[in-house]
Amino acid sequence: MVRSLITLTSDFGLKDPYVAEMKAVILSLCSDAVIVDVSHQVEKFNVRMGAYVLASASPFFPKGTIHVAVVDPGVGTRRRALCIEAKGCVFLGPDNGLLVLAAKARGIDRVYEVTNRRLMLSTVSKTFQGRDVFCPVAAHLACGALPSDVGPETKRLLIPWFARVIRERYKLVGEVVYIDDFGNVVTNIAEVDVESVDRAREVKLRVGRSGLLVGFCGAYADVKPGEPVVLIGSHGFLEISVNQGSAERELQVKVGDKVTVYRS
Amino acid sequence: MVRSLITLTSDFGLKDPYVAEMKAVILSLCSDAVIVDVSHQVEKFNVRMGAYVLASASPFFPKGTIHVAVVDPGVGTRRRALCIEAKGCVFLGPDNGLLVLAAKARGIDRVYEVTNRRLMLSTVSKTFQGRDVFCPVAAHLACGALPSDVGPETKRLLIPWFARVIRERYKLVGEVVYIDDFGNVVTNIAEVDVESVDRAREVKLRVGRSGLLVGFCGAYADVKPGEPVVLIGSHGFLEISVNQGSAERELQVKVGDKVTVYRS
Amino acid sequence: MVRSLITLTSDFGLKDPYVAEMKAVILSLCSDAVIVDVSHQVEKFNVRMGAYVLASASPFFPKGTIHVAVVDPGVGTRRRALCIEAKGCVFLGPDNGLLVLAAKARGIDRVYEVTNRRLMLSTVSKTFQGRDVFCPVAAHLACGALPSDVGPETKRLLIPWFARVIRERYKLVGEVVYIDDFGNVVTNIAEVDVESVDRAREVKLRVGRSGLLVGFCGAYADVKPGEPVVLIGSHGFLEISVNQGSAERELQVKVGDKVTVYRS
Repeated sequence: MVRSLITLTSDFGLKDPYVAEMKAVILSLCSDAVIVDVSHQVEKFNVRMGAYVLASASPFFPKGTIHVAVVDPGVGTRRRALCIEAKGCVFLGPDNGLLVLAAKARGIDRVYEVTNRRLMLSTVSKTFQGRDVFCPVAAHLACGALPSDVGPETKRLLIPWFARVIRERYKLVGEVVYIDDFGNVVTNIAEVDVESVDRAREVKLRVGRSGLLVGFCGAYADVKPGEPVVLIGSHGFLEISVNQGSAERELQVKVGDKVTVYRS
Repeated sequence: MVRSLITLTSDFGLKDPYVAEMKAVILSLCSDAVIVDVSHQVEKFNVRMGAYVLASASPFFPKGTIHVAVVDPGVGTRRRALCIEAKGCVFLGPDNGLLVLAAKARGIDRVYEVTNRRLMLSTVSKTFQGRDVFCPVAAHLACGALPSDVGPETKRLLIPWFARVIRERYKLVGEVVYIDDFGNVVTNIAEVDVESVDRAREVKLRVGRSGLLVGFCGAYADVKPGEPVVLIGSHGFLEISVNQGSAERELQVKVGDKVTVYRS
Repeated sequence: MVRSLITLTSDFGLKDPYVAEMKAVILSLCSDAVIVDVSHQVEKFNVRMGAYVLASASPFFPKGTIHVAVVDPGVGTRRRALCIEAKGCVFLGPDNGLLVLAAKARGIDRVYEVTNRRLMLSTVSKTFQGRDVFCPVAAHLACGALPSDVGPETKRLLIPWFARVIRERYKLVGEVVYIDDFGNVVTNIAEVDVESVDRAREVKLRVGRSGLLVGFCGAYADVKPGEPVVLIGSHGFLEISVNQGSAERELQVKVGDKVTVYRS
């Protein structure tokens, strides 16, 4: 028997009992489920960061995985709850762009609106749909319910504004989408974007306000400790790092800063 | 076969190896156990916060769950170790009030003092009873031992001073028992308490030093971002929140502050 | 069937998707594996702290456990990847001293260099070998591969410089190796070291710059709140604590500070 895998992504943090409540609901309804935390330390209400974290981790999970994501500033309002079927995996969460990067990368097959109250907790609070709606639905899916059981199919899907790269003749303009815990600066510029500008090993790049120019190396430790390095990170996007240091701090970069790649 | 569920609540944090040591002990003695963290980021030695976190999460776990909680400023002294049987669930931890909110909410059947050294690690340190006493006992219970095996039944049980609400003719006086990671302010005033003062939809309320007066709405997003809202939270208690912001910071509230509800 | 236990120790933190990616890779290759986090909050690039955390937790895990540890400032360079077989357990990680304390404590049988690419992910990034090398190898070991399958046996092993105690006629000189989340100060001086200086119950000790002199008590709560106490901690090393407070803060101690124990 293959055990069903459910992942959780949220901005709930680990101090409060909320994540445990979600797991309790899942294991009450489907005791065989295996639950993996993607992250609960998404910045509060930061849908873009949640979308990035989910899109980074989800490709590594096996077929059949059910991904629940809850970064949900609109909880309790009329924003819709979605269930996206994507090449054998399922993404459950609010219709605010949170699921789209990950689901699109996998390949969206069908989108359903989650409305079937028989798959939710008997009392649905207005403030905690992760526990009352998304996790019970995930548990039912893990135990055999079908995506089409959760509600009617829908064609509408809120497409988020982040993750756009502008191509000009001699340059690319993207932005910083994420800064990890090491201070590594992740951009929305993919490896293929870089190749479209210059196939050479050298990349010239400017980020934020610092007039930066860096060579394109393969690994963090190819430069001396404290020096910056530009590389394609393990998720296929251009990253700026400082060997054994924090690029965020030393280059004074923040999420949303423009990143310009020049033809060398 | 239903796998045995064991939850862990502590103030150990996630940096140190202590939580892993507890899990190692459990899985060494009962390899089928499924372990769920409730929280390990209870504030150091804050028994009230631990009691609240455990009481919030425990109702969502299924029958048969064994809850281990260790916020234990008196470890190594003569404070007793308890095993509380409550409607098919078990609560294990020190006799300092930590277990009582959760166990009472479920319904206490019997209380045992944990004394049977054959269910503990062979060497019991004076400083880490979570690993040496409570987790091995939990593992034995998960694998078939009975609560009555852990030691003699006892009638004594330390009842904590928190969670008292004072009812007067035209008002209720409670207090702030918890502030979550979003800055939501949770009080010890239950929905039924509020109804005893006023059945109307409007609630007038004062918290801490700020002379606050707020309407009673249903969901965070019914007010504009940055505005305060009073509501019954998902655990059934009166909460004060700020939509997409921190009520703790904006209203300058702290745990222990008085909360007064007036008849409108 | 006994499920295979894999532990993870890293400096990745819990905000980023990296830990989830490692778990995804393991569960993709070995869906029965049970994964336990030792800690992901090892200080960035602090190999000594990682080694201490792993060595503290690993003795409590059962035979057959596979320990993966990744605190790896040299990732992407030529530092070798190791697989250490130690009395029925396996330690996987970089050859930078991270694994040695834990593996030596258990008893090293054989050391292999991890080179077999068929046990790794098909694309190995230069920046994330935890996910691309160590976790897939661990999953294969959990599902039946042998340590000798991972690559050639080797006799070389980088021995770390930390954990040395100097014995003089009337004193012992060690150092602070770790400060836990409670502010407890852990030294590299073992109980047997202390006994070699003085079998009496009293220990005189100086730590860092503060001219401290403390009695040797058995439990945190034997002294009043706020007072310092010296004791043998649950891992067998001399610790300095402050009852219900932080020894780190009150005694102004930091990792690396000298600790001198005098004959009383």
